[in-house]
Amino acid sequence: MDFLSNFLTDFVGQLQSPTLAFLIGGMVIAALGTQLVIPEAISTIIVFMLLTKIGLTGGMAIRNSNLTEMLLPMAFSVILGVLIVFIARFTLAKMPNVKTVDALATGGLFGAVSGSTMAAALTTLEESKISYEAWAGALYPFMDIPALVTAIVVANIYLNKQKRRANAIEGALSKQPVAAGDYGDQSDYPRTRQEYLSQQEPEDNRVKIWPIIEESLQGPALSAMLLGLALGIFTKPESVYEGFYDPLFRGLLSILMLIMGMEAWSRIGELRKVAQWYVVYSLIAPIVHGFIAFGLGMVAHYATGFSLGGVVVLAVIAASSSDISGPPTLRAGIPSANPSAYIGSSTAIGTPIAIGVCIPLFIGLAQTLGAG
Amino acid sequence: MDFLSNFLTDFVGQLQSPTLAFLIGGMVIAALGTQLVIPEAISTIIVFMLLTKIGLTGGMAIRNSNLTEMLLPMAFSVILGVLIVFIARFTLAKMPNVKTVDALATGGLFGAVSGSTMAAALTTLEESKISYEAWAGALYPFMDIPALVTAIVVANIYLNKQKRRANAIEGALSKQPVAAGDYGDQSDYPRTRQEYLSQQEPEDNRVKIWPIIEESLQGPALSAMLLGLALGIFTKPESVYEGFYDPLFRGLLSILMLIMGMEAWSRIGELRKVAQWYVVYSLIAPIVHGFIAFGLGMVAHYATGFSLGGVVVLAVIAASSSDISGPPTLRAGIPSANPSAYIGSSTAIGTPIAIGVCIPLFIGLAQTLGAG
Amino acid sequence: MDFLSNFLTDFVGQLQSPTLAFLIGGMVIAALGTQLVIPEAISTIIVFMLLTKIGLTGGMAIRNSNLTEMLLPMAFSVILGVLIVFIARFTLAKMPNVKTVDALATGGLFGAVSGSTMAAALTTLEESKISYEAWAGALYPFMDIPALVTAIVVANIYLNKQKRRANAIEGALSKQPVAAGDYGDQSDYPRTRQEYLSQQEPEDNRVKIWPIIEESLQGPALSAMLLGLALGIFTKPESVYEGFYDPLFRGLLSILMLIMGMEAWSRIGELRKVAQWYVVYSLIAPIVHGFIAFGLGMVAHYATGFSLGGVVVLAVIAASSSDISGPPTLRAGIPSANPSAYIGSSTAIGTPIAIGVCIPLFIGLAQTLGAG
Repeated sequence: MDFLSNFLTDFVGQLQSPTLAFLIGGMVIAALGTQLVIPEAISTIIVFMLLTKIGLTGGMAIRNSNLTEMLLPMAFSVILGVLIVFIARFTLAKMPNVKTVDALATGGLFGAVSGSTMAAALTTLEESKISYEAWAGALYPFMDIPALVTAIVVANIYLNKQKRRANAIEGALSKQPVAAGDYGDQSDYPRTRQEYLSQQEPEDNRVKIWPIIEESLQGPALSAMLLGLALGIFTKPESVYEGFYDPLFRGLLSILMLIMGMEAWSRIGELRKVAQWYVVYSLIAPIVHGFIAFGLGMVAHYATGFSLGGVVVLAVIAASSSDISGPPTLRAGIPSANPSAYIGSSTAIGTPIAIGVCIPLFIGLAQTLGAG
Repeated sequence: MDFLSNFLTDFVGQLQSPTLAFLIGGMVIAALGTQLVIPEAISTIIVFMLLTKIGLTGGMAIRNSNLTEMLLPMAFSVILGVLIVFIARFTLAKMPNVKTVDALATGGLFGAVSGSTMAAALTTLEESKISYEAWAGALYPFMDIPALVTAIVVANIYLNKQKRRANAIEGALSKQPVAAGDYGDQSDYPRTRQEYLSQQEPEDNRVKIWPIIEESLQGPALSAMLLGLALGIFTKPESVYEGFYDPLFRGLLSILMLIMGMEAWSRIGELRKVAQWYVVYSLIAPIVHGFIAFGLGMVAHYATGFSLGGVVVLAVIAASSSDISGPPTLRAGIPSANPSAYIGSSTAIGTPIAIGVCIPLFIGLAQTLGAG
Repeated sequence: MDFLSNFLTDFVGQLQSPTLAFLIGGMVIAALGTQLVIPEAISTIIVFMLLTKIGLTGGMAIRNSNLTEMLLPMAFSVILGVLIVFIARFTLAKMPNVKTVDALATGGLFGAVSGSTMAAALTTLEESKISYEAWAGALYPFMDIPALVTAIVVANIYLNKQKRRANAIEGALSKQPVAAGDYGDQSDYPRTRQEYLSQQEPEDNRVKIWPIIEESLQGPALSAMLLGLALGIFTKPESVYEGFYDPLFRGLLSILMLIMGMEAWSRIGELRKVAQWYVVYSLIAPIVHGFIAFGLGMVAHYATGFSLGGVVVLAVIAASSSDISGPPTLRAGIPSANPSAYIGSSTAIGTPIAIGVCIPLFIGLAQTLGAG
């Protein structure tokens, strides 16, 4: 019961947090027929500033890290970020009526990291007198950014395939005889090898992956985030980060959440038939991701002496889902995904589970294994 | 003479305050033919942020108040906010050549509350060792928001009536014979009872009130303010309020004031014939409003033991006119009202009178009645 | 060698500063084909806020200065600001293939003042125990603003002349016989004195200067800056300055630098043939400007007792080139000038020379003359 009351307290706390409060506020005023419109130019610059800040945070954390010491946990973080997206691709996305892009965006959010969940874990570890590496917190960009990039790239590859398939079907349909007695003309037969190949392609559904990755990286979302990352690693943006991008972050996010809430309202009907799958995924995924990460962390524990406290940190950042960096990135990177699906899953269920269930679970496990 | 010199000091101080300085600056550069243009998208988002902040401030003040204890003063505050608008409707708006929407917007500003005037009153009360309820300051949203909502709704009802009347007149004119010898045809006579009723309506000038109220509340101005109010009451937006909406407020207001100054310049000619009425209103209204509020406050004093210090606070917030929350709200809510009329009246005359005349007046009155 | 290593340290430090880092970042993502676009409305409001802040800073510095005491150094600052632009007009602009507007913009930046270079000079003077007038730092707006205004006005006069000449040539060409055997008609001969005069005018290339100055001052760039200046001098904008314009300045500048970087990339080819002239100018100009200012400062030293420390301050602000106030002003005031030319010259070479070479040079000179 203690667990349930903790969970409910966390759940209500999340609903009152500015992030979710503005999202719900946006849905409510949209439902009430508001004529409020946030200009497109504003949401563009807000997304730019949020993503630049996310990149800068990651870049500065990487610059200030001891990369050689953290090599193995770092590699595991990258692997986890990518893996979690593919888990969503082959579980949530396969559920009946669940849209693939929504599932990928949800997977991206669950792969990305929540700074506040991580902070809660670090605090609890200290209270439990379990020591961990000082750089453990710096693992988060190595999971966060790969997860978001993977979600966007995989979604774009998927959408591209869909489009080609649609074109192929349309092409095929337009070649069908429209009436009985309509003699097929010769044009259906390829005249050259080149034409033959180009005709085959749509049926294979082979998509050239690299141009799509390149295009994803050149898109406004990822190019702002990667620019911030590079500036954070190679230059000294601390003054503008501390005086501008960081302090404005939460406020700008609240405006974007409002916009996303208004957008989400108009699409909430799409979720009616599939909401239960998101609930099931959001309840199970944090625990599964946490256990995989805990296992990989134990490998690093035995191989390179990564502390048990560090293993808990790795498990919790894998269990956590992004309530801050993810939504703006995914909105810009996968515009066709439904925010009510991915933000609802992550913020309303995933985060309370990560904080209320996973943190005590993995700390207990570490203590059983001899930590503290 | 002391009074006059105090008044003049306050007057010049107001002219140098950023709010009025940027307004005048905007008028001056417009007069000098500037090509400066603040993009529409920017003024939209500025208005949104200002109104959300105003709503949040009010909502958080309400959430942190002891509502049962303050019930009667609270009800009086709401009544005063609404009443002051109707006073302007039946005094200032009746003066020759004064436009009704301008008078309503001015009444809205005089009904709304100036945070800085209220702060000056609280400080003076403390210096005079007159005690007052800690929640007295929380009365302000209960007067501020009803006044602005009333002004916008009544203006929209008025404008709607005007439009219907114009349509009716136009309709009537178009039915008049255009030339002598033109025989009236039968179409002037209603053929059915339905047609008869629909023809009568314009002459009755009956306006369906509720749709207009609904539309006012759904407009960008009030829906942002009411959203902020609801978020302030039901959620915990403190972190984004303190880190974003509150610190940016004055700066964003300065940009809006500049825009309103440039707009005001192009319409200043409209005021030439009626400026004296605004001066008379601005000199008298704060004192009249203050006395009404003082009377209602004394009712609460005898009925529920509301302190005499609290009565002074109620009187001063009724006497004060908004220099901050009002202008952006009215600009968005009653776009056809002339900012040079309402901001000029409120900020240049109303506020110095409220600070320089009303605060000492009502504190003296309270002391005569036994306070301190 | 110590000099060279100092210079290189300063050079790399400049490349890592947010200003130049975001500029280079913008060039890099443009080169990589980013689809990131910062909306026009956003860059408009950023330029407005930056220029208003620059004006406010200058205005408040002037309001808080003792104008009579600083009269002569102040006049010399204005003269230097104007002179430096004309030096660029008659040196850099005369180099083969160098575009006149680019040279003028570069001269404007070298005439404008870098706050951080000045701060470095003041710190070094204190470390060397050389005393200087407390108001010496307040000289900077008197050089900064005239330099930028002069650059913009002279560039507009130049562009206007170019346009008239182009029209004249076009006019002449259109009057030339298009084919042999084409008889010239009489229309080439002026029929009236008026027509004769108006035909002569283009050949004289006489441009009415005053309308162009007026138009430059009414343009968005200068009217925002002069508005800020006036508000800084005549009103009390400290609260919005300290809470809004000043803290947001560097962050907004970083966004503008990114935009300018992306713009610069598309025009970097223009510099290929002339880059060496900008390098030569940037290496020599700070030292030459510093010596002229040092000479004028010595005149004030002997005439009015201006301290040797003050003379150093004057020399260093003349030697410095603006990395902060200049770029946004020039981008808005001379949109056709190439940012890669003027920002590259100023920030990458001019500033390291001013800090690494000119500060020690002029402090040494002052010590030789008896300071400290």
